Amino acid sequence: MTAHETTSGYNVRLLVSCPDKKGLIAAISSFIAMHDGNILSADQYVSDAGRFFMRLEIEGEGFGLEREEFAGAFAPLARRQGMRWRVSHTDAPRKMAILVSRYDHCLIDLLWRWDAGELAAEIPLVVSNHPDLALRAEVYGIPYHHMPVTKANKAEQEAAVLELLAEHEVDLVVLARYMQVLTPAFVGAYPDRIVNIHHSFLPAFVGADPYQRAHERGVKVIGATAHYVTEDLDAGPIIHQDVSHVTHRDTVEDLVRLGRDIERRVLARAVRWHLEDRILVDGNRTVVFE
Amino acid sequence: MTAHETTSGYNVRLLVSCPDKKGLIAAISSFIAMHDGNILSADQYVSDAGRFFMRLEIEGEGFGLEREEFAGAFAPLARRQGMRWRVSHTDAPRKMAILVSRYDHCLIDLLWRWDAGELAAEIPLVVSNHPDLALRAEVYGIPYHHMPVTKANKAEQEAAVLELLAEHEVDLVVLARYMQVLTPAFVGAYPDRIVNIHHSFLPAFVGADPYQRAHERGVKVIGATAHYVTEDLDAGPIIHQDVSHVTHRDTVEDLVRLGRDIERRVLARAVRWHLEDRILVDGNRTVVFE
Amino acid sequence: MTAHETTSGYNVRLLVSCPDKKGLIAAISSFIAMHDGNILSADQYVSDAGRFFMRLEIEGEGFGLEREEFAGAFAPLARRQGMRWRVSHTDAPRKMAILVSRYDHCLIDLLWRWDAGELAAEIPLVVSNHPDLALRAEVYGIPYHHMPVTKANKAEQEAAVLELLAEHEVDLVVLARYMQVLTPAFVGAYPDRIVNIHHSFLPAFVGADPYQRAHERGVKVIGATAHYVTEDLDAGPIIHQDVSHVTHRDTVEDLVRLGRDIERRVLARAVRWHLEDRILVDGNRTVVFE
Amino acid sequence: MTAHETTSGYNVRLLVSCPDKKGLIAAISSFIAMHDGNILSADQYVSDAGRFFMRLEIEGEGFGLEREEFAGAFAPLARRQGMRWRVSHTDAPRKMAILVSRYDHCLIDLLWRWDAGELAAEIPLVVSNHPDLALRAEVYGIPYHHMPVTKANKAEQEAAVLELLAEHEVDLVVLARYMQVLTPAFVGAYPDRIVNIHHSFLPAFVGADPYQRAHERGVKVIGATAHYVTEDLDAGPIIHQDVSHVTHRDTVEDLVRLGRDIERRVLARAVRWHLEDRILVDGNRTVVFE
Repeated sequence: MTAHETTSGYNVRLLVSCPDKKGLIAAISSFIAMHDGNILSADQYVSDAGRFFMRLEIEGEGFGLEREEFAGAFAPLARRQGMRWRVSHTDAPRKMAILVSRYDHCLIDLLWRWDAGELAAEIPLVVSNHPDLALRAEVYGIPYHHMPVTKANKAEQEAAVLELLAEHEVDLVVLARYMQVLTPAFVGAYPDRIVNIHHSFLPAFVGADPYQRAHERGVKVIGATAHYVTEDLDAGPIIHQDVSHVTHRDTVEDLVRLGRDIERRVLARAVRWHLEDRILVDGNRTVVFE
Repeated sequence: MTAHETTSGYNVRLLVSCPDKKGLIAAISSFIAMHDGNILSADQYVSDAGRFFMRLEIEGEGFGLEREEFAGAFAPLARRQGMRWRVSHTDAPRKMAILVSRYDHCLIDLLWRWDAGELAAEIPLVVSNHPDLALRAEVYGIPYHHMPVTKANKAEQEAAVLELLAEHEVDLVVLARYMQVLTPAFVGAYPDRIVNIHHSFLPAFVGADPYQRAHERGVKVIGATAHYVTEDLDAGPIIHQDVSHVTHRDTVEDLVRLGRDIERRVLARAVRWHLEDRILVDGNRTVVFE
Repeated sequence: MTAHETTSGYNVRLLVSCPDKKGLIAAISSFIAMHDGNILSADQYVSDAGRFFMRLEIEGEGFGLEREEFAGAFAPLARRQGMRWRVSHTDAPRKMAILVSRYDHCLIDLLWRWDAGELAAEIPLVVSNHPDLALRAEVYGIPYHHMPVTKANKAEQEAAVLELLAEHEVDLVVLARYMQVLTPAFVGAYPDRIVNIHHSFLPAFVGADPYQRAHERGVKVIGATAHYVTEDLDAGPIIHQDVSHVTHRDTVEDLVRLGRDIERRVLARAVRWHLEDRILVDGNRTVVFE
Repeated sequence: MTAHETTSGYNVRLLVSCPDKKGLIAAISSFIAMHDGNILSADQYVSDAGRFFMRLEIEGEGFGLEREEFAGAFAPLARRQGMRWRVSHTDAPRKMAILVSRYDHCLIDLLWRWDAGELAAEIPLVVSNHPDLALRAEVYGIPYHHMPVTKANKAEQEAAVLELLAEHEVDLVVLARYMQVLTPAFVGAYPDRIVNIHHSFLPAFVGADPYQRAHERGVKVIGATAHYVTEDLDAGPIIHQDVSHVTHRDTVEDLVRLGRDIERRVLARAVRWHLEDRILVDGNRTVVFE
């Protein structure tokens, strides 16, 4: 049965990584089969360094393990193989918060896609250090929290945002052109769960004003990069990148305009993949099971 | 262990398709594990119509089944599940024939890639209905058979080509801009094993002079399509397609020039995928495990 | 002085086409120089068939010809060379109507870009044969006219739409996934001024359900085409096309989703070019001075 | 008359840059018209910094200025406007030298395109610091100069290469993966006339081993950059860039393989544009009249 026929039910997704050895696929798939699970899709990868990664999507209907039973049943196998693993259920969509400043294109695009059913998540709140985009969120019925940041109140305000996210049980934080650098404390609270869009093809033009610097360098392509946020600015694991060709005729303003299209496309795809449990982090690289 | 570390040894590739049901991945991977096989990569897909496809690459070193034993051991499982399957070994590269007329770009590109190690095949011969490109093949030490085709001798000449291919135990026939329409008899002799490059993004511009017709229609992209040859002209399962942007400034000659780049890139990739056993045919569609 | 520095003032755009002959550029640019015009950009093209096309953008500030004087001054030159020409002023933006049915992605995208300043036009109205998208327009303060079409009232309703467009002095009609075939009367009222988005890379998949048919054919790229509407369905001059790669994993629903991104990008670019007077029609082809 | 019909004759190309002011296009095109020149194509651009660039292609047949007369006739106008300018004739193709080390893909591709008529140049010699690729050049009848470079003889050997280039009146030097850093003396001898291909999308991964570093960084696109060589390594004016998408599955070897395709495509296009006089240098940026 294909994944696309099961819209009425739900699926179970299992992500696993561990040191590679013989028999892992057999062990995992036999575990699923033993519990009457129907595997809808299976993806697997072994890194150069010998680490095994797997993603399974299993039909919820007919699967013999109740969701509270899964961990207990799977733990012994996982322990013996030294697995890092997680399981999710598609009828319990993740809670996603969007942080934004004044540029509206990524926010609007995410909300449009969410409304169109492209992003399987709940969006309990949008947080911004500026008041400008309140209506953009509220037109979709999403509360907008204006939390201005100054040098004086930065630490305090970040703590308040963290509290707000915790209160809403947020699982994924999307930085949709949020122009504040997050502190290590914030980053540490959401490891591999903060997605940022940077407006250059990293590692070129790390930091501020990438379009200005791209124009000065006279590049013939510009790009955008979606990545998980780590403590090092713009250095976290890259999820997705895309580019557009530009010419000498394009001014900085043109690059900004063309860049908006790339940014929103790249960010939306990264968020979708995250929400579909398609991304595993492998050191500073990502495994993306498209 | 990753596929990329095993250059000294060989790998075993297993391709399977059958009606989907629960437990197939477990059954197949357990079969491999039971015989001490180390799975290097696994890809799986279930079509909308409920057909299951799988590709496994297994390390030859340490695998408990000798190559003459595999069929006997796997047959009972395959029979019970109604599987179509095939197995190949990377140390027994396929024999590939290239058929060409007068345009040299695809031929030269394939031979360069072959020489660079991108295409794991033997090329026992190049066949052409024109003498022009003999040196192109012979510089690589590959025999060039000039077999001119006229209306009068077409059937006879095709039979001669077929005989030549059989004699060299050719497994894959690549039409690198071969300008003769093959008869059903020829096509039937190599089902899903003749790869053609058509110089348009099919299904647009089926048939002759696609660049001329693309120019007349004023399209803003041109493309090329690699597909398996079936009895219906340009209607076989598509393997790969790519395009380039064009403008009003591009003449038909420019389209031909730009198209050469697309054609050779698309054909080379399709041939590489075929040689790496990455393609399964699903009716008139292809499953490509990149 | 560059085009980008003149935001406070306005520019004059002159588009010309005529049979090619020696001295045309000199004649036209000398005419501009004689009247103290500063040419900000000049583009020129001669078709294979020997037709000359030119686009000039002239700084309004300092140009010696008042806008009501231009035609009288330019007419003798234009007459002698058999020119088709038109002039526009960037401080008198075009009036653009958007026609839409139920798919919202192109409408939303156009309105967002318009609001972001990417499209220099006034949008006096949105017309739809369905009521669904009224809020989408009204949130931007744009009147939404619900004009349902049935077999019985089609001719009458079209006449009503035409009247409405005339009343608002509409210059450009954008079909943003408007699912009604326009009659020759309607098309004839706006020659080369109705832009449609078709959800395939024409000429493949003319007509209905292109994504369904693309999936059935097993194509590996899908695309979208923006074109001027003529009496022949999906056969008018192509303005812009773009594509995305797809795989066997993509269902029809995935193609529809991926296609939305292509459609809105392609349509927006075509509309932008039209509004910037970058497009000249050459028979059934377009000259696009990007 | 179009550029494409004049294959039997020759064209004259005029490239001009100077401070922008009113009337430049009129002045230049009137000069051509005064001398009975038929302008086949005209491209113009004004930079943000207010510099004017123009490229004209004029039909040789019927043009009233003999080639030895052009400079004298044009000089007064050029002097008054402070123009930098140059003129070339398409029946006097440039002499182009290719410098290469051991990677053959760019060399083979350039020679194939040259043989196919895509590159309007003479290639009097190929120079290499390794003997490996001699046959690749000689099969096309082009002399191959093996000039090995050691730390001890580098200065001396460079001088010998320069002498050889001078002797053959070489006008354009193409570094087709030439793995020696050129000295300022060499670079200074061919300002804006040495084209290099760098195997990354600059400014990312300047210097050695870009594919290795791209893999370590976990990028999702790789690219190549053709640029003019200046004294600063990999920092010269960029002519063209292109990229390919990659995934976690791609090893460094895969990046090298995929990169070969990008490198040869990007380099070939840059060389073609240079030979067609489509590139003007504007500080550290290029104006490319495609």
